[in-house]
Amino acid sequence: MSGEFALIERYFTRPSARAVLGVGDDCALLQSAPGMQLAISTDMLVAGRHFFSDTDPRLLGHKSLAVNLSDLAACGARPLAFTLALSLPEMDAPWLQAFSEGLLALADAHHCELIGGDTTRGPLTISITVLGEVPADSARLPVPTSALLRSGARPGDDVYVSGHLGDAALALRALQGQIDLPEPLRPAARQRLEAPQPRVVLGQALRPLASACADISDGLVGDLGHILARSACGARLDVSKLLPLLATRQQFAGGPAQFDATYGPPLALQCVLAGGDDYELVFCATPAQRTAIDALAQTLALPLTRVATIEAEPGLRLVDAQGAPLDASFASFDHFTH
Amino acid sequence: MSGEFALIERYFTRPSARAVLGVGDDCALLQSAPGMQLAISTDMLVAGRHFFSDTDPRLLGHKSLAVNLSDLAACGARPLAFTLALSLPEMDAPWLQAFSEGLLALADAHHCELIGGDTTRGPLTISITVLGEVPADSARLPVPTSALLRSGARPGDDVYVSGHLGDAALALRALQGQIDLPEPLRPAARQRLEAPQPRVVLGQALRPLASACADISDGLVGDLGHILARSACGARLDVSKLLPLLATRQQFAGGPAQFDATYGPPLALQCVLAGGDDYELVFCATPAQRTAIDALAQTLALPLTRVATIEAEPGLRLVDAQGAPLDASFASFDHFTH
Repeated sequence: MSGEFALIERYFTRPSARAVLGVGDDCALLQSAPGMQLAISTDMLVAGRHFFSDTDPRLLGHKSLAVNLSDLAACGARPLAFTLALSLPEMDAPWLQAFSEGLLALADAHHCELIGGDTTRGPLTISITVLGEVPADSARLPVPTSALLRSGARPGDDVYVSGHLGDAALALRALQGQIDLPEPLRPAARQRLEAPQPRVVLGQALRPLASACADISDGLVGDLGHILARSACGARLDVSKLLPLLATRQQFAGGPAQFDATYGPPLALQCVLAGGDDYELVFCATPAQRTAIDALAQTLALPLTRVATIEAEPGLRLVDAQGAPLDASFASFDHFTH
Repeated sequence: MSGEFALIERYFTRPSARAVLGVGDDCALLQSAPGMQLAISTDMLVAGRHFFSDTDPRLLGHKSLAVNLSDLAACGARPLAFTLALSLPEMDAPWLQAFSEGLLALADAHHCELIGGDTTRGPLTISITVLGEVPADSARLPVPTSALLRSGARPGDDVYVSGHLGDAALALRALQGQIDLPEPLRPAARQRLEAPQPRVVLGQALRPLASACADISDGLVGDLGHILARSACGARLDVSKLLPLLATRQQFAGGPAQFDATYGPPLALQCVLAGGDDYELVFCATPAQRTAIDALAQTLALPLTRVATIEAEPGLRLVDAQGAPLDASFASFDHFTH
């Protein structure tokens, strides 16, 4: 067996449990259960753009799959399987060992099976396509699915955010030397950047509760913006509810006021609104679901914070605790406009 | 809408015909028909490795999908849909326009729908995951599928190759300046390299006829080798049947003898056996299928040439027309050993 294939065999091939046929043939084979639909998503991570070349390969393996599982979570789909296309500058056994361990540990945690892939020499690039399943729903129009879509938000809906926001962006600035984070808070923020936990269980639990959902990968303003665009509506976003979601600021020695005094108040807002790399969910639900959503937050031990209200008027309006408007010049992180 | 998303929208989004939900949400949704299995394959193409950076983007779009459809063909699967992950050094509108046209023209020809993707800035890299379908077959063991697998070859089976072999490798050497190809034969060979036609119809037609199948992407020796390894058997390969498959040599002014006199006899053999980039199928079938396979070749107007016999003894034995052994030191093209 030649080098490339031996390499794949060694690090990425394991017995197939869910697929009809796994790694090793021209195609993998997968059979979905009757009444189920496949949810499919692809993400590509490029060295120097989405991660530093010297990132711990174990964390990189974890994150490469995490960002894809986050897309399944946003649809409320249950993970099934994934393919991996990997371009590497050189055949580096310790790197592959650690990368595959990080990747497959997260895969195992979500019962998501590696069923195929491609390995080649080239600039370090990781492309994963993930497959999940979600029940069909022939009664639902215009898309006959029980999957959560971006297009279902309606005026009057509450808008929620899961977990915390902005700490990953803060960690990135610290790694880039733009700011100095105090030692006790630094590893936690870095953990948020390098080892995000995709909200797969939350997404599935939200299927009967939420009207629309997206994952927050490019920043809240941008990703809530996708929901608003596809739902043809707008939202009023209460910034006083958002700022406490920046965990580093809450835990700062001297409290949030000291954080703002140290870094300047716009930093917290920038990180929370447009930081990127959060991999939390932003979702909408009618006010009738408030009790159920609060109960779900308790069950999952995960904050689900009501931060905005959907309105008929298009656009995103940022307001303070008193409802007074804020400047809305926070763009989503975007690979081509920055 | 921000730059990156506008870009995707502009070149790659079209109304979805087969998918429940296409491009534009966190996931695409696909529902497979009852009794069908999904066949899934991923390939990654890297600039400077799999193609020249200045390759005509229209041809590159075609080839990027063609190499993936070739994997579906090898399994006998019918194409359904694909995802595209694209890393680009810069946002280049004319390039994207041409690339998407080449890509989507081949997609349309095979009714294979673009259902999702990711676009980012980085070294030019194209990763496609293709999804096809194939009937399940619960009576078939150990894998309950009607898909063609690499593992089904048995001693006594004939080995066939579709179409022509080695012309793509010849064109590559000409483009690299290693050899000089006469003008009338150059564009045809280059067409084989840059615009391969995946054998999708042939693959599906072979499902009831063939015992094993693989596509020839890395050279016949390597890809037939995969069949032999997974079927735990060997083969005797008649080189005199293979050399006429090099179309450029057959059509050379003065005939095959003049080709060999010009370039040296080993070149033809190297290109046919280990050239790479052929995207033909190599398949096995019992001698009882000879009439059916000859009829299929007629129907498809595509040569299906019997070039080898499967034997119980492991290994690949190259023989001449008289059955005398040849040197077997032709390695498969491999990204990490070359």
